[in-house]
Amino acid sequence: MIRLNSHPSGRHFLQIPGPTNVPDRVLRAMDYPTIDHRGPEFQQLGKKVLADIRKVFQTAQPVVIYPASGTGAWEAALVNTLSPGDNVLMFETGHFASLWKRMADKLGLVSEFLGGDWRHGVDAAAIGARLAEDRNHTIKAVCVVHNETSTGVTSDIAAVRRAIDAANHPALLLVDTISSLGSVDYRHDEWGVDVTVSGSQKGLMLPPGISFNAVSAKAIAASAKSKLPKAFWGWDEIIEANKNGFWPYTPATNLLYGLSEACDMLFEEGLPNVFARHKRHAEATRAAVHGWGLEILCQNPAEYSPALTAVVMPEGHSADAFRKIVLENFNMSLGQGLSKVSGKIFRIGHLGDFNDLTLMGTLAGVEMGLALAKVPHQTGGVLAAMESLRAAAAQPALRAA
Amino acid sequence: MIRLNSHPSGRHFLQIPGPTNVPDRVLRAMDYPTIDHRGPEFQQLGKKVLADIRKVFQTAQPVVIYPASGTGAWEAALVNTLSPGDNVLMFETGHFASLWKRMADKLGLVSEFLGGDWRHGVDAAAIGARLAEDRNHTIKAVCVVHNETSTGVTSDIAAVRRAIDAANHPALLLVDTISSLGSVDYRHDEWGVDVTVSGSQKGLMLPPGISFNAVSAKAIAASAKSKLPKAFWGWDEIIEANKNGFWPYTPATNLLYGLSEACDMLFEEGLPNVFARHKRHAEATRAAVHGWGLEILCQNPAEYSPALTAVVMPEGHSADAFRKIVLENFNMSLGQGLSKVSGKIFRIGHLGDFNDLTLMGTLAGVEMGLALAKVPHQTGGVLAAMESLRAAAAQPALRAA
Amino acid sequence: MIRLNSHPSGRHFLQIPGPTNVPDRVLRAMDYPTIDHRGPEFQQLGKKVLADIRKVFQTAQPVVIYPASGTGAWEAALVNTLSPGDNVLMFETGHFASLWKRMADKLGLVSEFLGGDWRHGVDAAAIGARLAEDRNHTIKAVCVVHNETSTGVTSDIAAVRRAIDAANHPALLLVDTISSLGSVDYRHDEWGVDVTVSGSQKGLMLPPGISFNAVSAKAIAASAKSKLPKAFWGWDEIIEANKNGFWPYTPATNLLYGLSEACDMLFEEGLPNVFARHKRHAEATRAAVHGWGLEILCQNPAEYSPALTAVVMPEGHSADAFRKIVLENFNMSLGQGLSKVSGKIFRIGHLGDFNDLTLMGTLAGVEMGLALAKVPHQTGGVLAAMESLRAAAAQPALRAA
Amino acid sequence: MIRLNSHPSGRHFLQIPGPTNVPDRVLRAMDYPTIDHRGPEFQQLGKKVLADIRKVFQTAQPVVIYPASGTGAWEAALVNTLSPGDNVLMFETGHFASLWKRMADKLGLVSEFLGGDWRHGVDAAAIGARLAEDRNHTIKAVCVVHNETSTGVTSDIAAVRRAIDAANHPALLLVDTISSLGSVDYRHDEWGVDVTVSGSQKGLMLPPGISFNAVSAKAIAASAKSKLPKAFWGWDEIIEANKNGFWPYTPATNLLYGLSEACDMLFEEGLPNVFARHKRHAEATRAAVHGWGLEILCQNPAEYSPALTAVVMPEGHSADAFRKIVLENFNMSLGQGLSKVSGKIFRIGHLGDFNDLTLMGTLAGVEMGLALAKVPHQTGGVLAAMESLRAAAAQPALRAA
Repeated sequence: MIRLNSHPSGRHFLQIPGPTNVPDRVLRAMDYPTIDHRGPEFQQLGKKVLADIRKVFQTAQPVVIYPASGTGAWEAALVNTLSPGDNVLMFETGHFASLWKRMADKLGLVSEFLGGDWRHGVDAAAIGARLAEDRNHTIKAVCVVHNETSTGVTSDIAAVRRAIDAANHPALLLVDTISSLGSVDYRHDEWGVDVTVSGSQKGLMLPPGISFNAVSAKAIAASAKSKLPKAFWGWDEIIEANKNGFWPYTPATNLLYGLSEACDMLFEEGLPNVFARHKRHAEATRAAVHGWGLEILCQNPAEYSPALTAVVMPEGHSADAFRKIVLENFNMSLGQGLSKVSGKIFRIGHLGDFNDLTLMGTLAGVEMGLALAKVPHQTGGVLAAMESLRAAAAQPALRAA
Repeated sequence: MIRLNSHPSGRHFLQIPGPTNVPDRVLRAMDYPTIDHRGPEFQQLGKKVLADIRKVFQTAQPVVIYPASGTGAWEAALVNTLSPGDNVLMFETGHFASLWKRMADKLGLVSEFLGGDWRHGVDAAAIGARLAEDRNHTIKAVCVVHNETSTGVTSDIAAVRRAIDAANHPALLLVDTISSLGSVDYRHDEWGVDVTVSGSQKGLMLPPGISFNAVSAKAIAASAKSKLPKAFWGWDEIIEANKNGFWPYTPATNLLYGLSEACDMLFEEGLPNVFARHKRHAEATRAAVHGWGLEILCQNPAEYSPALTAVVMPEGHSADAFRKIVLENFNMSLGQGLSKVSGKIFRIGHLGDFNDLTLMGTLAGVEMGLALAKVPHQTGGVLAAMESLRAAAAQPALRAA
Repeated sequence: MIRLNSHPSGRHFLQIPGPTNVPDRVLRAMDYPTIDHRGPEFQQLGKKVLADIRKVFQTAQPVVIYPASGTGAWEAALVNTLSPGDNVLMFETGHFASLWKRMADKLGLVSEFLGGDWRHGVDAAAIGARLAEDRNHTIKAVCVVHNETSTGVTSDIAAVRRAIDAANHPALLLVDTISSLGSVDYRHDEWGVDVTVSGSQKGLMLPPGISFNAVSAKAIAASAKSKLPKAFWGWDEIIEANKNGFWPYTPATNLLYGLSEACDMLFEEGLPNVFARHKRHAEATRAAVHGWGLEILCQNPAEYSPALTAVVMPEGHSADAFRKIVLENFNMSLGQGLSKVSGKIFRIGHLGDFNDLTLMGTLAGVEMGLALAKVPHQTGGVLAAMESLRAAAAQPALRAA
Repeated sequence: MIRLNSHPSGRHFLQIPGPTNVPDRVLRAMDYPTIDHRGPEFQQLGKKVLADIRKVFQTAQPVVIYPASGTGAWEAALVNTLSPGDNVLMFETGHFASLWKRMADKLGLVSEFLGGDWRHGVDAAAIGARLAEDRNHTIKAVCVVHNETSTGVTSDIAAVRRAIDAANHPALLLVDTISSLGSVDYRHDEWGVDVTVSGSQKGLMLPPGISFNAVSAKAIAASAKSKLPKAFWGWDEIIEANKNGFWPYTPATNLLYGLSEACDMLFEEGLPNVFARHKRHAEATRAAVHGWGLEILCQNPAEYSPALTAVVMPEGHSADAFRKIVLENFNMSLGQGLSKVSGKIFRIGHLGDFNDLTLMGTLAGVEMGLALAKVPHQTGGVLAAMESLRAAAAQPALRAA
């Protein structure tokens, strides 16, 4: 047996922005013996999770569940809707938007990447302008990331939809919600998204291993004409088999047990309360960051992520050295800066199965780590966060959203 | 919470040929909180499972582990090595060979399917003959299934290798071991296989959700030139990241916990003992089938599968009606007949975490089910199986392989 | 970590007559973090299990739950109701009746032991006769074992009640149901029992660690006058605290989680179905024993235990040598002969979380073990058991009791 | 299924001074199927835990493990060593000392209670003086509590030993370590204790349900003459059966699995490190209390408990109202004031499986709760605690003790 927590005592604080802390209820649900994926008990399970997950995406349309991690769902969204050489318009919100663009290129698409500074969300106006120029409709899809996990910036998807519509452009809208689904209000149908990509290991509070494509009728129509080769990712056979609660190949049964339980938990709390909770924790976290006198990577308050907060390290200090000190001394994993911001930022995940006191432990670990790492900062960010949480607690109406 | 076992009492007998019964040790290992997939504990885990899994494949070459189920690993084997329009030679051992062929076609390959009767293994001579004809080496890969899960027939992979070599043909050899790895002796290196495909949910005793490509140097060289689009399945970045124990994207962490434990169990028992155990249970199962006076689907005793036994239903009796009776009365899932043999056969899985008494419970359930379903048969197959197991127990040297 | 199953593969068959196989649902329920035993969640749990357990005892009177194993509940029954030097009348049904008698003596009571041959149940007439002689009512309690775990004999408790009443004797009736509660129909109220003793690890399908006293108003009245010293076992404070769902000292919280789940399972199946299932399995087991030509220890068919069957070894053969062979070869634990019948019998537990196929695996293990141990027997007991189970399956009305 | 955590999200903070947070490793270890308590695997387990637990008590003498909760072990210590009417000298450190005294009286002993103010530990000098007066040695035992869970005061047991020796008195020394074992340095042999009582649910990080008597040769000699009735609690048969790794009656098997794992964890960390960790957390907690301007119940700094801190509520404020606010708003259970100090204090448990960040979450919950409950206090106790922990982290030598 591998030692999964090298610290001698106490629970690990997994405060990367995903995978997130898996609730005990979900772990226990996943721990049951695997059943026959072609039998009646499975069928009941399949129908339940397929109905549940639609509610989470706020959609009445099909959601395809893959026995694969989130990166696969990115690929699925592309290969089901597009053909070799198709143009796709993407927006550089950060590392994950860049990876998705790179994937599009690998798959034989021709991507156009609208540049961003990693500190703001998608510029819907820029997308609208570019589409307006595209008179011949050579752009077949617009791909954006709802919550950029590498920067802590949440984009306005409804605005992107409006921009596409204003340009009267037929491009499909593909959205990555891997780190927002189940944490941030997201409306697949209302916002007119064609394919929403997501994964299990963030707001859904599951281990990694299953991922999702919520699809529109327009996306399904596109898939009938799409020429990129596909087999494992093909929507058609899955959607067909799903009608009876089954899958065309072996699904990740035990993760579906977990999904069923996780959805139960989300619905028991109520999605609006879930979203309000994430906002409350994000606000308290920012209060702490401001208290420390540090800078938040996201520069537009309207785009602050409810799921994570990326913090800029003062010049001359390594975020990774700081993170190592925190891990070794306080048994907490914080998210690293990725590619362009490697070493320059650290990320605090405050999503998934989480509560006020766990957040306070998290923020105390950051504050103590800053001191140990001799990073210039002001003491007392933790007090500001407590003040924020306390104020929210005093107004239960706020808590309940 | 979905009810996973609708029977009121006792453990379900999951005797389909996979997913198999997951050992308590593996379930508990998977039940730990998810950890940071970029942290030092994960690195230790990654290195261990990558080393362990090589031993199971009997290879010193890389094994790629996907956070995806087995069907994905089929796709990975094809898209990493081949280019659009490439010819592949496949052999119809049964339903799964047919599905793999269908996938090849979907991905834009040109498959040639050597016909089989679903009652025999791969005809290595036929493959050799076809390759000998192929003077221009238009055939780029030979794809065969080691243990055809739909029929209970195991093919001689070394013979296929010899046939390719005798034809002096450069085609790659791709082998599906989804239902044999960890149950049947399989030697990736010794048999000169280029890509071995496998999955977690059979002999590895895990839930479905991770899958494998064991690759040869020749396969890796082919991947550098292959033109089928690939991103999620691309070997290059995974093999590179694996050098440090990591993955380029989020791996299925909790299933890797399980894999670590499952490998520990296989090595504690000793792979030769594991293989001997499966043979012993297969032999006892066949003794029962003969005792009932029923027919085994596999017609060549040299090709009897150690992992499952497919039984032919007497004319005029539905295998599915029989299976339903067994499930409802005895809380046991048996494998159904697939496509061509739908309703005509049933399959008894005797692989994975299993022992003599569980096998006897299984066979008693079949015998009682035959009677309840009024299927013509002779009583006492169970006695023959006991005799077989008892004889093996009396000769421990046989048990220990 | 200690290895809990030294066999390399497959689940252990725990076919001793308790502890029994713990269902996965119960194990998972017990695996939750411990909660505050003085908080509101605990209170909800406490009230639920106190209500549930009454239904299992078929009583409307208090049931005291101890954080202690079954032997403690024996002691509790005595020290709560009796005073030093009190006479108690006990009946020697077997080893456990003898141990309870020994305990009475150790505690300063004066026990009188009506002899038995370990092959029959309680002789209610003998008890009646003895009480009739006891004109001065020096006998304060009659103590009998409902299901003697050492012999597989179930006694008629209602008959004992009638005998006491016929003698017009005020003695309390104390009954041990450790191996019958939840497996055999038992009616605390209807049968006029004053204290029913039980434990968690048999029909309740829990690990050992909690135990029970169901009490009558007469028993409670006796406890007010009883002079044996008591503190931990004292009913008064527990019953008082239980009114609010709490305990006067720390209860075995996680076992109570399991109790809650186990009661849910019993009620979902329905107690009459649970009892019918145990009878069905007992009958099939006896069919096998007769098939082997072996002798059942219990000589009165009306007293055959639904929970276990004790089998007499042919003269000159050691039951323990046989059991060792079964354990080593077939990964099954059978019950040993205790004290007077040590080495002379073995016991097959068929209670708790169990089903037809697990029983068949169990009986096949016995039949193969008999052969390996060269114990004279006829082959085919297993066939007789299958015939018995098959016949029951063909008459669902019988199954559903 | 009962809902065990009525809060919608995040882990409960169980910061009562026991039961404590059970580590995931221990929960998983306890979750394995129960095994035969008379079989070879159990024997191996039994021998291991009996050896392990001695190390935790720092003794080479027998430790008796009961399948019963801690209150039972109190009773066991008394009934094994004493006779009806024996005089015992006890010291009123708080609620639990008072309960033990009450138990002694219930069992027919004659207790003498040296009064205490609930704010100090045992007055060894007073005990010595009383024993010196007892020329006829009518006092048979001195009973003291090492760590009084109701007050957060730890007594100097070695000093009590010296006082007894100085008085040249033959009384046995009985010590309750229920809330100190595994958290506070405790030396059964070195301090010459005759019976040490303990339980599973505090420093041993297990659920409640097993308890302990560590015994000296003198105690065993006393048990041979002791006349209090005893059966379940009798040391003799248990110690005899333990020689082979077994118990005379059914032990609490699954809790022993947990004990094995918990001991592994304690030894991996190293007992001195475990003790240093508890001291560090206690010191940080007191720093917070001082920061809030509140009063610690324990008045002698030399007697501050490393396991819990009891805090005095300002006059006119209800500790229970405060605790309710904390539970409802922050999902944290704090310990209540018991009997004499009911409503006047609250207790913060900082023992068991715990780390710096969980402590900080705990203290933040207290500080926010004080504000919400409008309890007069100064802000910033949390900062003082962070300073304390940070300083300790900066001096690893201190951490490693």
